[in-house]
Amino acid sequence: MEISKSKISLINSLSIGKYRKVHSLFVAEGEKIVSEILQSKLRIKYLICDKNYKIPDLLQYIEIFSADNNTMKKLSNLKTQSQIIAVVETPKYELDYSNLLNGLTLCLDDIQDPGNLGTIIRICDWFGIENIICSENSVDLYNPKVIQATMGAFLRVNVFYKNLSEFIPEYKKITKNVCYGTFLKGKDIYKENLAEQALIVLGNEGNGISKSLEKIIDSKLFIPSFSKNEKHSESLNISMAAAITCSEFCRKSGPV
Amino acid sequence: MEISKSKISLINSLSIGKYRKVHSLFVAEGEKIVSEILQSKLRIKYLICDKNYKIPDLLQYIEIFSADNNTMKKLSNLKTQSQIIAVVETPKYELDYSNLLNGLTLCLDDIQDPGNLGTIIRICDWFGIENIICSENSVDLYNPKVIQATMGAFLRVNVFYKNLSEFIPEYKKITKNVCYGTFLKGKDIYKENLAEQALIVLGNEGNGISKSLEKIIDSKLFIPSFSKNEKHSESLNISMAAAITCSEFCRKSGPV
Repeated sequence: MEISKSKISLINSLSIGKYRKVHSLFVAEGEKIVSEILQSKLRIKYLICDKNYKIPDLLQYIEIFSADNNTMKKLSNLKTQSQIIAVVETPKYELDYSNLLNGLTLCLDDIQDPGNLGTIIRICDWFGIENIICSENSVDLYNPKVIQATMGAFLRVNVFYKNLSEFIPEYKKITKNVCYGTFLKGKDIYKENLAEQALIVLGNEGNGISKSLEKIIDSKLFIPSFSKNEKHSESLNISMAAAITCSEFCRKSGPV
Repeated sequence: MEISKSKISLINSLSIGKYRKVHSLFVAEGEKIVSEILQSKLRIKYLICDKNYKIPDLLQYIEIFSADNNTMKKLSNLKTQSQIIAVVETPKYELDYSNLLNGLTLCLDDIQDPGNLGTIIRICDWFGIENIICSENSVDLYNPKVIQATMGAFLRVNVFYKNLSEFIPEYKKITKNVCYGTFLKGKDIYKENLAEQALIVLGNEGNGISKSLEKIIDSKLFIPSFSKNEKHSESLNISMAAAITCSEFCRKSGPV
């Protein structure tokens, strides 16, 4: 069946966070992500496929609407439009502190760039970090650019939005784990004995970790530069810092 | 003086690699990068400033053209247009193998995404890696998106374009250093004794390192995943892999 005008405008509205909340829906594009969603716990409400797209048999139980090339272009959030777009129900899951007792948990203080959040979710997936806690004003997980940048990793990593001034003390009280944060000044991450069970806080792209959170962080870490050039970059991008920090926590050697 | 139509079309043409080569010019935008270029060895041919931009005294010896808001928008390659755009002469520098004897050198086999190249240049700047050798069909350093993503780090890291099938054997012969490469299968990077002087080859975003280069790489490394989920991401993004690899080579501990 051809897609209706009302559905087109609904799907377009899902590029805005407010409407994603109202409808409890989000959009994911492309064969790879859609096939991963099909194998996950998430529920696809319906699919929109290009008229020329050969619909695989395994999609027979899902409502499918067809759209011409031009409409697909309008619906797509990507530069090169997709042949298939899924409208997916936003899952509801509650944070259970007992899941945070073991292993590492990442905390993101006011992360703004969708590409960065997507990349960090992908890093967490790689390093077996199953839970990310974002501050409430961080970029929305279901922003199409975040979903795209995760390359499907959002299906394996839980992202929660919490007031971090409340969450961090609660986490420390319940788990008895250490809370680390990455700063531009602190203890050399390569020389520390890093805990295997811990919370790691990363800050905003421009401003780092906020002053109010800095006070409740137990251990300040920094990634030293190895440049001999005095004018070297002032900081690493937050995704880079996340990759190096997770690698360093996971490699499980003693300090250098 | 107001910018001329011919200059506008010249600057616009510089978003295309062919014209950057013809004119030996490239474009850099924004106060921060322009002020870093001013303090570098590069030569700014002229600047274009928004009509309302208060020109600092230190720019008095540079030819400056003014442009209205609309023109600045047309000239800008960024989403949020800049108040200042520099047209810069492409520097000519020759690869000197004696500079590659000590420390680490990065080799990029057919890197395509400008954001990735920019990010990797920034990582190299952080880790004190002064030279990157790209295969000849890699994305151009002077692509405006690369320049922007480096956040000025392109001023401190040299990028050369070479035929890698010729460069790598030559590098090994002259320096006697080891050549590493990152693969999806290989020796666990965390368990290897990594050399302090070495060449590290990273592959293309989709295809990794090409078959022909694989043969001349001495040691294949891989970054293991710590995920317990069988369906975890198949690979890390190349920038992430570069960040973790450089961190691991630089931290200078023994293996785990």
